Amino acid sequence: MVTPSQGFEVSSVNVPLGGRSYSIQISSGASDGFAASIRSALGDVSHVLVIADEAVDQPWAESVSAALAASGEEASPIRVSRTTVASGEPSKSIAEMDRLLQWVLQKGGDRRSVIVAVGGGVIGDLAGFIAASFARGIRFVQVPTTLLAMVDSSVGGKTGINLPGAKNMVGAFWQPSLVLIDTDVLSTLSQRSYLSGLAEVIKYGVIDDAEFFAELEDQATALVARKPAALRHAISRSCQSKASVVGEDERETSGRRAILNYGHTFAHAIEATAGYGKFLHGEAVAIGMQMAARLAVDLGMCDPSLLDRQTRLIQACCLPTTWADADPDAMLPVMMRDKKVAHGKLRFILPTKIGAVEMVGDVDEAAVRAAIVKLKS
Amino acid sequence: MVTPSQGFEVSSVNVPLGGRSYSIQISSGASDGFAASIRSALGDVSHVLVIADEAVDQPWAESVSAALAASGEEASPIRVSRTTVASGEPSKSIAEMDRLLQWVLQKGGDRRSVIVAVGGGVIGDLAGFIAASFARGIRFVQVPTTLLAMVDSSVGGKTGINLPGAKNMVGAFWQPSLVLIDTDVLSTLSQRSYLSGLAEVIKYGVIDDAEFFAELEDQATALVARKPAALRHAISRSCQSKASVVGEDERETSGRRAILNYGHTFAHAIEATAGYGKFLHGEAVAIGMQMAARLAVDLGMCDPSLLDRQTRLIQACCLPTTWADADPDAMLPVMMRDKKVAHGKLRFILPTKIGAVEMVGDVDEAAVRAAIVKLKS
Repeated sequence: MVTPSQGFEVSSVNVPLGGRSYSIQISSGASDGFAASIRSALGDVSHVLVIADEAVDQPWAESVSAALAASGEEASPIRVSRTTVASGEPSKSIAEMDRLLQWVLQKGGDRRSVIVAVGGGVIGDLAGFIAASFARGIRFVQVPTTLLAMVDSSVGGKTGINLPGAKNMVGAFWQPSLVLIDTDVLSTLSQRSYLSGLAEVIKYGVIDDAEFFAELEDQATALVARKPAALRHAISRSCQSKASVVGEDERETSGRRAILNYGHTFAHAIEATAGYGKFLHGEAVAIGMQMAARLAVDLGMCDPSLLDRQTRLIQACCLPTTWADADPDAMLPVMMRDKKVAHGKLRFILPTKIGAVEMVGDVDEAAVRAAIVKLKS
Repeated sequence: MVTPSQGFEVSSVNVPLGGRSYSIQISSGASDGFAASIRSALGDVSHVLVIADEAVDQPWAESVSAALAASGEEASPIRVSRTTVASGEPSKSIAEMDRLLQWVLQKGGDRRSVIVAVGGGVIGDLAGFIAASFARGIRFVQVPTTLLAMVDSSVGGKTGINLPGAKNMVGAFWQPSLVLIDTDVLSTLSQRSYLSGLAEVIKYGVIDDAEFFAELEDQATALVARKPAALRHAISRSCQSKASVVGEDERETSGRRAILNYGHTFAHAIEATAGYGKFLHGEAVAIGMQMAARLAVDLGMCDPSLLDRQTRLIQACCLPTTWADADPDAMLPVMMRDKKVAHGKLRFILPTKIGAVEMVGDVDEAAVRAAIVKLKS
C-alpha cells in the first residue's frame, strides 16, 4: 500500500517539556537507522527491552532488536530482550502489567534499562506504564506502527491500563525519551485502520491550524494513497500541534489540553452505543467532529461553511460523516458520564472558525439531541 | 507508653519541591484536628478514600474518617470510604494493588478524590502508589503511625510495591499533599518498634547535623521514654534533614540522595542473612551504621571518637551495636547485589565527622570484611 519512499529525509518535532523534553523523528525508508537514532539520543544504552504488538513483531520489532544488538561494540555490548503482547485493548490489564514487570525483572532490568515499545496505542500505553513504574521510572522509546499512534499517543506522555469497565483508569504521565516514526512502518496497516488515523489529523487542522487544514484539503488524495511526502508533512504538523498544546498543559490541569477532545465526547458515545467494534476510533471521531461542528453552527458560534468544509475533507479521506443509527436517547446518558462533564452539565469543545475552538459549558441538552439527529443523514 | 501530651502545639516542616512542595505538620494531642487540617491544606475535598493498616484502623483511621465525614457541610458534604490492608510487607503486591484500585473505582473515585494513608511504611508505599496511578495521579495525605514512617517515608515521595524477590521494584515518585504527624498516634506502637525508629533519627545526626546529634545525646533518655517535646523535636529535625536532601535530588538522579543510605548497605545484608524477621529494620540499621563507622575509622577517614560517640548514643537508645553472628562470607554476596554497587565495585556512604558523610567508591573487600568481623562483639 505504501508508495516506495524517495530517500532518507528525517524531520524532527520537539516536544517542549523542560527537563522532560524529547524529539519525534519523522522519516520514510529510514527505519534501518532506528538503532543508531536510539543510541545517539539516549547515550548510555546497554540493556534494551523491546515490547511489541504481536501483529508487528515481524518485521518491525525483530529488525529493531537485531539492529540494536548488532550496534553494540565489544567494549560496550547491548543486551536486547524482546516479548510480544496480544493485539487489542484487553492487553491493557493489570494481569498483563504483572507479567511484563516480572519479565523485565527476569531479564535483568535495572534503572539504566531502556524499554522500546513497537506497536499502536495499546502497546504505547501499556509499555509506557511499565517504563513509568519499573524501578520508579526508566527510559522508554516509542516506535508507533499505526497512523493514530503516530499523531496522537506519541505526543503527551499519557500511559495507562484499564480497570474492568473503566478505560485508562490507571496510569502515569511519563514522557518517552524519543519517538521514531517512519512512514514505511505503516505498510503492515490495513487501509481502513490507516484512514481512521486521518480523522485525528483533520482534528488538528480544525482546532489549531487553519493553514494546515487548507493543505489537507489539497493533499487529501495523496494522503489516502499514503504518499510519503504528504504523509510526513501531515504527521509532522499534527505532532507540532499536539506538542504545543501539551507543552502548555502537561498534566491536564489548566484545561488547555481539553481542546484535543474536539469531537471525542460524541465519539465515545458513538463507540459505546454502536457496540465497540462497529466503528474504529477514528471513524467515530470523524462523525463526532461532524456532530460538534453541527452543534456549533446551530448555537450560532460559527459559520455554516465550516461544517461544509469539514464534511468535504472527511469525505475526501474516505471516512464517514453521518451515522444513520445515531440515537440521542442512548448517547446522552453516556455523554453525561464522560469525564468532561462537570457537575452534571454537558461541556463541549466547539469550533468558532477553522483553526480555533472554545470550551463551552452548560450546553442545552435539546441542542445536543438536535445535532445528533441531524447527523443521521 | 506515651506520656500524656501537654497541649496542642503544631510545628511544621516544609518539603521544598517547587510545584510539588508540601507541609509536614507535627503535633502532640492534636489528632482531633486532622480532618480540619486536611480540608484547610487541600481545599476542594468532597470524596476521601482512607486506606489503613488493619492494626491501626482502630482507633486512628476510624476517627479520622468519622471526623472528615462530620466536617462536611450541607452544601458541600464529604463522602468517606475506608478499607484496611493486612499488616506487613506481603501487602505490597500487585494483587493488593489490583484490589485497591478496583475498590477506589467502585467507591466512585475520580480525579478530585483524595487518598488518606493511615499506617506505617507499608501502607504509605502501597496507598501512595495507588494515589500515583489512579486516574494518572490523585492527591494523597499521609498519617504515619510508626516512628520510622514519620521520620523516613513521610518525606521523599517514594511509593511502590514489590515483585517476587525484588523489594520496591515497582512504583512512582509521587509527593503527598500533606503529612500529619501526631506523637500520640505512637501509643499503639510496641516499644521495640518505636526504638527501632530511633536508629533512623540518629542517622540524620551523623550524616547531616552535628548539633542535632549532640541534642540526641542529651535527650536519649527522654526519647526512650517517648516524652512528647523531645519526640516532636527529633521528628521535626529528622524531617528537615531529609527534606533538604530530597529537595536537592527529588528523583534520586544527582547522587545527593544516596547519603540517606548511610548504614543501609550493611543493614540490608544483615537483614537478608539473619533471616527476615530476626532484626527490625531500624535494629539492622543501627548495626549497619556501626559497621560503616568502623570501616571509616579503619580507612582513616574519621577519628575513632566518632565511632565511640555513635556507639554510646545507639546504646542509650536501647538499640543493638554489635551482631555476634555476623558472617562476612554470607553478607558480602548480598552487598555485591545491592543497588548501590556500580560495575561490581562496593560503594559506601561513610562519615568524615559527625554531621558529614562522603560517598566512597571501590572500597577494598578485605576492609569491609574486617569491619564486619570487628562488630561481632
